[in-house]
Amino acid sequence: MTTVTKKDLVDRIADKTGQKRGDVKEAIQLFLDEVIGELTNGNRLEFRDFGVFEVRERASRVAQNPKTLEQVVVPARKAVRFKVGRLMRERIVVGESHSEPVATR
Amino acid sequence: MTTVTKKDLVDRIADKTGQKRGDVKEAIQLFLDEVIGELTNGNRLEFRDFGVFEVRERASRVAQNPKTLEQVVVPARKAVRFKVGRLMRERIVVGESHSEPVATR
Repeated sequence: MTTVTKKDLVDRIADKTGQKRGDVKEAIQLFLDEVIGELTNGNRLEFRDFGVFEVRERASRVAQNPKTLEQVVVPARKAVRFKVGRLMRERIVVGESHSEPVATR
Repeated sequence: MTTVTKKDLVDRIADKTGQKRGDVKEAIQLFLDEVIGELTNGNRLEFRDFGVFEVRERASRVAQNPKTLEQVVVPARKAVRFKVGRLMRERIVVGESHSEPVATR
């Protein structure tokens, strides 16, 4: 398993398109910044075939520390959710919807 | 809440940078395609401040249909996971690590 970085992809895209590396870098960086900005503003982003980014709110709740038995309020928080799009799902997720009966013993 | 699309961001990036709309569109589309391609090949992508995309394997397991009591094998499957990066987390996720004791009644 390899870890791929933004720089790796910028280099590759510049090579494939013949665009200037600096231009590609600027566009990709702005793209990622815009995603963060839109999520910060409470908007969702939908990129066809790729997926959807959105912010989900988790309600405040009371939880108990199992050791001290102290009850604490866990405040409402936000979490970013990424839902995989159709194309990515088809390519990556294998056997997702198939369940087979267990053989009788 | 607004839904923002790839086209929205391409237009915005072209306006901000002065790059040709077609060039920006090509770079962004290739970027998203490369992410899907790398995940399909089992690699992870790490974009600083933004987050990490990776594929997790879920093991095969036996489950029971609660209505028919039939046991079925749920096959191993893959799922794409997005882990939010530091910058995005700080901007969006509020009050994440603070829990307050419940007032005694």
